[in-house]
This record gives sequence, structure tokens and C-alpha cells, in this order.
Amino acid sequence: MEGFGQRLMRAVQLKRTPTMVGIDPRWNSLPEEIKSDVPGRPTADQIAQGYDSFSRAVLEAVADLVPVVKFQSAFFEALGPAGMAVLWSLAELANRLGLIVVMDAKRGDIGSTAEAYADAYLAPLPGETKPIADALTVNPFLGKETIEPFLQSSKAHHTGLFVLVRTSNPGSADLQLQRSNHGTISDQLARWVEDWSSQSAGSLGYGDVGAVVGATHASELHSFRQQMPHVPILLPGYGAQGGSAKDLADAFDDRGLGGVVNNSRGILFAYQTERLRGRDWRDAIRAATQEMIADLAAHTPAGNL
Amino acid sequence: MEGFGQRLMRAVQLKRTPTMVGIDPRWNSLPEEIKSDVPGRPTADQIAQGYDSFSRAVLEAVADLVPVVKFQSAFFEALGPAGMAVLWSLAELANRLGLIVVMDAKRGDIGSTAEAYADAYLAPLPGETKPIADALTVNPFLGKETIEPFLQSSKAHHTGLFVLVRTSNPGSADLQLQRSNHGTISDQLARWVEDWSSQSAGSLGYGDVGAVVGATHASELHSFRQQMPHVPILLPGYGAQGGSAKDLADAFDDRGLGGVVNNSRGILFAYQTERLRGRDWRDAIRAATQEMIADLAAHTPAGNL
Repeated sequence: MEGFGQRLMRAVQLKRTPTMVGIDPRWNSLPEEIKSDVPGRPTADQIAQGYDSFSRAVLEAVADLVPVVKFQSAFFEALGPAGMAVLWSLAELANRLGLIVVMDAKRGDIGSTAEAYADAYLAPLPGETKPIADALTVNPFLGKETIEPFLQSSKAHHTGLFVLVRTSNPGSADLQLQRSNHGTISDQLARWVEDWSSQSAGSLGYGDVGAVVGATHASELHSFRQQMPHVPILLPGYGAQGGSAKDLADAFDDRGLGGVVNNSRGILFAYQTERLRGRDWRDAIRAATQEMIADLAAHTPAGNL
Repeated sequence: MEGFGQRLMRAVQLKRTPTMVGIDPRWNSLPEEIKSDVPGRPTADQIAQGYDSFSRAVLEAVADLVPVVKFQSAFFEALGPAGMAVLWSLAELANRLGLIVVMDAKRGDIGSTAEAYADAYLAPLPGETKPIADALTVNPFLGKETIEPFLQSSKAHHTGLFVLVRTSNPGSADLQLQRSNHGTISDQLARWVEDWSSQSAGSLGYGDVGAVVGATHASELHSFRQQMPHVPILLPGYGAQGGSAKDLADAFDDRGLGGVVNNSRGILFAYQTERLRGRDWRDAIRAATQEMIADLAAHTPAGNL
């Protein structure tokens, strides 16, 4: 089986877009059609059922358009065990629909605890045959050796990681831009990630250890792409957080490979925007996805895909 | 209702020990009595049931001896939704047994995603009346503003945080000891945490935002205690990771307050040690807990409790 980096880039080529749809459901933003089943204040179980119905429709609406989806674990965890059951069943559905699945859980811990997180997301559960995700986002704050268990699991099960290198939020500079032995802390992380991914690069040039770099840091993308030539870059922050397609051009190689651009709210809740108001919410999701695909194709090397 | 820091310190006074039992079950280490129900390779559901039976017995064995328990989320997440259901039901049991519950999930994310994690662990689920945990461990890598949603939830629901300041593993120096605007990154984090906790300190002098500082960094504990006079310090790494009671003395004030010392494997799997072999595993858990209580009382200010 091919490594994660290779599979991801092949999927980007196949769908001819680096668009990633983020599954971040929020009760207050769900279409009335879904909320109307629940009169009064919903329980966690009712919200979980709403997330299930809504997210299934999202996955079905975008499966033929995009190569990859990203689930934000927090929104499901916030519903307790019922939410986690829905998250797992949605990830299985995404997998059956042929989508690559990134679990955005930003896990990080030491030794055997990191192994347990890798077991949860990057390896099949005991008694199962497939991992629930193709890749997991990982927080490197605890140090280089704490990424090792994730790397091992990734290697054994043909899954991948996205290590947080430079996050999209305003306060990301607090720690990430402090000086380290090699430039900033983010630069040092970029060096680790490039080392790991250069060792697992497939024929399209990208390895199994990606980096998360906020789409809000346009001026830094050129440098990160150069520091990490074999690293798939996951770019959050397009749309709602203010990153534009033009800002992202430097994250790609000339073929339009190397980056995947996430959009969550801008797609999921497109039916609430002025532009698409009045459209069926499923149609609005498809329309917003198609607009994003066109936007990336027009303003980044993704147009060469 | 009292704040988390005050409740934690009162519980330490009441039980006269800062001992924290870590609930980190591992299938291979479970007593044969529990594993024997499962012939062959266990499924995730069967392991989850084993963790449930084992951890219930642990909680019942230690509830009258210690003030606080810590659940390691990763070991339950590694079993998928079945594991999460068991984790929640165990945390509820710990709460009913009068134990303070720390969820060791090391969560961290931005904006509304951080809010969702805070909702999951520091606030009641929709339709419920109590939060599942009294406190959550939090990873600060994404920056100061990303801790704010956790602080707000903590304030609203009388729960608490433990922010990772200096972890117990060898590689923790990679990022945590890089220079920042105020000494090392760990020093800078210590300053944030002290600011937050000094604002919420109860009559015993400790606030609602704790720090995780590895028991393996004995020489730094004196400085951290001085930098964070109002901060409860969670000390992992006693026992299995090599930290001794004497190493921890500096984490406490003269009354024996200010620190809680975690021990997971050393207590849970005490029945496998030379010293306690042959004893019933529940008895061994109690005996190991009592030994740790005596050890801390003999070699740290916890003897003054």
C-alpha cells in the first residue's frame, strides 16, 4: 500500500483540487430542517444525532468534488461518548465514499501514552482491519521523541501525521516564533518534519509527515515551502479566518501539489451567506465547494492540476 | 461553590496526602482474573469492558485514601467510542466516590475549537448538570489567547486547568527550554499560570489554574514553586519514571500544600512487583497507595498535613 503523502497527492491530482472540507458542526448553525426535530433545549444525544444527519449530507454532497475531509474532534467530544460514536461512524462513511480522512485532534503526549493516541487514530482498533483515519494532527510541544510513536504507527499502517508548525491564530507567535537553535521554534519544527518526510517521499515527491501552517501567514509560506520540499502542508484559515487564495500560492509546487487548503464554516454553513441564501443547504454546500475549487485554481498553481 | 484550587487543597488536607492515583489501564498488565473472561485476541469492546471492571475496583480501593485521581484519556480513546463511554462512566463513579477528577487529555486548539474542548470536560454536557471532570490538562503550544476559552469555562463552572509547563520526558527540553522573552518558554508559561491563579486563589492560597511540572526535574522545582506561589503543581513521573519523594519536597509549601503527585503504573500494577507478588491485586493496589502516602509524608512537607 502507498504511503499517506503519496495517496494524498494522487487524490489531489485525481480530483484536480487541493480543497479540504472541514467537518466542524455547530448546533446553532445547523439548518432548521435538522434542528426542528428537537423542540426546546437539545440534549447531547440529540445534538449528536443532528451532527450525524448534517455531516452525512455534507460528506455525500462533496465526495465527488474534493480529495480529503478533516474532522474537528473537539466538536464531537463536546457531546461526550455519543459524539465520539457519531465521529467514528462519520469517519467510516467518509472512508467508504473514497475520501481521505484527516482527524484534527491535535494529540500529543509522552511514551506509551503517545502510542495509545497513535493506536486510536493511526492503527486499526483491536478486532478491526482499518484505521479510522488516514492522518492525525499532532502537537509537538512535548518534544521530538514524543512524535516517534506516531511516526512508527504511521509507518506500520500506511497512515500519516500533520505536525503543528505554525498555527493560524493571532497568538501563535507567543511560543512558535521564539528563537530556537535553528531560527524560530516553527523553523526548528519545519526541519524535523522535512527530515521525516524526505525519508518517506513517494514518486510525487511528498512524504507521510505533513505540517500545519496557517493560511493567515502568507508572507511565511514561501520560506516554509522551501524549508520543507517533501512535506504536505495543511493550510487552515482560508475564508472565515481571513486567508485568501492568492495568499496561499507559495504553498504549492508548480504542478499544484504540496498543499491542502481547509475550509470548514465557509462551506458547511454557506446556506447562511447573502450570496447563497434561499438555496437548499445541500446545494449551497456544493456551490461553495465549487467556488473554492475555482478560486484556488484561479489564484494558485492548483490551476495546473 | 468553591474554586477548583481551593477544593483540591481542602481535599489534600482532608485525606492528609497529596497522592494522586493515575487511571492508565493497559490490557497486557491487567490481572488474569479480568483477562480470563476473554479467550483469544480481545476486541476493543472486550478491552473496554476489562478496563471498566479493573478501574472500578481501583477507584473503590483508593477512594478513602487519596483526594484525587487522574484519568489518562489516551488509553480509553485507543478503544474508540466504547473506550470513551467507559471513561465517562468511570469519571462519574470517581465523582460519586468523592474523588476529585482530573482529565489528562492535554487538549489545545484555537478559538471556538478550544471552547468545544472546554465544553467537553470543564462544563456540563447539554442536558446534564455536572461537568465530567474537576480539571483538564491543557497544552499551551498554540499561545496564550488559546487558553482563554478554558479559563472562561473554568470560571463559569468552578472547574480548573493544569497547563503543561515542563513535562517529565527527556525530550521536553527541545521546545520548553528554548529562550523566550522571560527566561525559558517554561518560565514564560509559569508566569502566565501564576497571573491567572493569583486572581482566583482561595483562602488556602491556591487558584484554579495549575501547572504540570515533571517530578523528574527536581532541581527546577524550587524555582517553579517560587515563580508560581498560587499555582497547584501536578507532578507526574514519581515511581515508574524515576522521580523520588525527596526530589519533590520543593514543590510544596510548609503546610504540605501546593502539589499533587501522580502515580499510575506503580499503584495499578503493584500486584506484579516482587514486593507484593502473591497478594490479591486489590490489596496490592491499597498497599502500594499506602506506601506512597508514607513515602511522601516522610520525605516532603506532606508530613505536616
